[in-house]
Amino acid sequence: MADRSSKAAPSSQIRPGHTDVPSINPKASPRASGRQPDVEAFVHGILLGDRVVLSRAITLIESTRMDHQQQALEIIERCLPHAGQSIRIGITGVPGVGKSTFIEAFGRMLTTQGKRLAVLAIDPSSSRTHGSILGDKTRMPTLAADPNAYIRPSPTSGSLGGVARRTRETILLCEAAGFDTIFVETVGVGQSEVAVHSMVDVFLLLALAGAGDELQGIKRGIVEVADAVVITKCDGDNMEAGKKARGHLRNAINLFPASETGWRPPVLLSSAMTGLGLEKVWETVQKFLADNASTFGQRRREQARFWLHQTVEQQLRTQFYQHPAIRDALPALEKAVMAGTISTTAAAEQLMAAVK
Amino acid sequence: MADRSSKAAPSSQIRPGHTDVPSINPKASPRASGRQPDVEAFVHGILLGDRVVLSRAITLIESTRMDHQQQALEIIERCLPHAGQSIRIGITGVPGVGKSTFIEAFGRMLTTQGKRLAVLAIDPSSSRTHGSILGDKTRMPTLAADPNAYIRPSPTSGSLGGVARRTRETILLCEAAGFDTIFVETVGVGQSEVAVHSMVDVFLLLALAGAGDELQGIKRGIVEVADAVVITKCDGDNMEAGKKARGHLRNAINLFPASETGWRPPVLLSSAMTGLGLEKVWETVQKFLADNASTFGQRRREQARFWLHQTVEQQLRTQFYQHPAIRDALPALEKAVMAGTISTTAAAEQLMAAVK
Repeated sequence: MADRSSKAAPSSQIRPGHTDVPSINPKASPRASGRQPDVEAFVHGILLGDRVVLSRAITLIESTRMDHQQQALEIIERCLPHAGQSIRIGITGVPGVGKSTFIEAFGRMLTTQGKRLAVLAIDPSSSRTHGSILGDKTRMPTLAADPNAYIRPSPTSGSLGGVARRTRETILLCEAAGFDTIFVETVGVGQSEVAVHSMVDVFLLLALAGAGDELQGIKRGIVEVADAVVITKCDGDNMEAGKKARGHLRNAINLFPASETGWRPPVLLSSAMTGLGLEKVWETVQKFLADNASTFGQRRREQARFWLHQTVEQQLRTQFYQHPAIRDALPALEKAVMAGTISTTAAAEQLMAAVK
Repeated sequence: MADRSSKAAPSSQIRPGHTDVPSINPKASPRASGRQPDVEAFVHGILLGDRVVLSRAITLIESTRMDHQQQALEIIERCLPHAGQSIRIGITGVPGVGKSTFIEAFGRMLTTQGKRLAVLAIDPSSSRTHGSILGDKTRMPTLAADPNAYIRPSPTSGSLGGVARRTRETILLCEAAGFDTIFVETVGVGQSEVAVHSMVDVFLLLALAGAGDELQGIKRGIVEVADAVVITKCDGDNMEAGKKARGHLRNAINLFPASETGWRPPVLLSSAMTGLGLEKVWETVQKFLADNASTFGQRRREQARFWLHQTVEQQLRTQFYQHPAIRDALPALEKAVMAGTISTTAAAEQLMAAVK
């Protein structure tokens, strides 16, 4: 996978100010392979910014084994007081928009300024295709070799809800490890945008100037959750198409009322090749955060509450649909409901009765 | 409320072709007040198109009493074979857009053509304000006095999911009572559009030409689920603003790819005062249904399946959050999650353990 476990953690990456990192028996270090380190050792390594330890902890989060999950839970609990101190930026856009290239150029600009950047992903499709498009090791070669950057591909199993929950917990560990800027990228295909939107502070939509007036491939509704739209590949012959797309998008956005804080998503031109607009994107992120500063804490708290309920409800659904009685009864009842021979309420009652 | 129980059901409204309406003991008629009629009597009355009986059956659907719900369930089951034969049209738009006036004029045009129209509503806000904006008896005076129309306000209690489920069941009873055109109206404030969208065949968004370029009050995302946009109040001095809004909306809609069947939502001008565009709206509905005829049955079946799962998951949530242990534990855990002193996963685990 694309994380940099193999060349990790020079001592320069120890976080300043982490005077409360507990001391530890070196033999229990999670860096030593072969044995499973204890929670204490994991927390110690993460707080020191050790990315081998961080990667192993994230692997625990993603594991389906009960003992791993329990250990992950304890690690997260212990890291929680050290989390939260980052800017979380969602980035979406359909395949072909140049997402990796944009993230490379934009991310590199930030790490050069001294930012510590973690690039995470939510790609629920990867569990089905058994090969995440976001997991390609060579996809972001510059950032992959950057000591200030950490790239972790999408968890590759589970429902969107499960993948999103794990990515959200990974954000917390990355923050505890000292990363101050988090990118969460996702493909622009619908539902996953809602999940990402509810775990980031600001959401960027990458768009491609199409051959015609149409913004090819952007799903309806996605443009609606964006805090800024960035048109990619605005270089050479593409510049004019980019400017045209910007005009169209601005018109579309201006049809809708501004947000409660008065924010209207700006439409920016960018080029990873020439560097055009990258500074402007960062300025826009900062301006958005400044304009929405009064509600920043409240939004994060609401996000936490949202994810508590999401997690509970996902577990309720999972338990229900995995119940043997439901597995037995559901297919026939679905068929009957679809054929109109039983009402949905009556069918639902039968299912609810089956698990009693 | 605005249904016409008091002046209902001349014998001319008996549905043609209903030769299978069971005969019944007249003393058990649900039209006789004072005693609760049996299921047989309800079904008989509904299939005869008796709107007093229909109204009482809908009241059972909306009741929170267990015995009422059970009776409603049996009535729906019995009516199900007679349901489904209508065009279901969702209509949304923010307050002030002239929704009632549009529905009056558009509905009147249809009833004059011999259509039998039921106007239902989903207004989850009505349960909170204790006075539905959709329940005003004088809101649609012409349709309220029209023997071919039946107006039923939104259920006034329950969550959006519950209100939507009841409205969906009311559609089935109205269809069994011989209504061939169903309007489901809702206020354009977000979530309820998704619910309505998943129970209708075609979805109309009413929009108002604003003073400026902005379409005042339309929530982001709503324009995305519309199959057609109807600009209201295009008469007199408003005509120019209407045409301008049409241009802007067309541009916005054309930014997005067409649907799988190649449909692009048209933008129409209308006036309830002059009748402008009303025929065109009906032609558009018919064209949409014709263009999407190949997937009509499949969409209805998917909607039924969707509502089965919605109903089950709503009941799971209700049972969970009403559990005494959850009521006890939730507030403190929510607070802790929002304060960042416990992870959402750990808090969710504690809640799940509490109901075991």
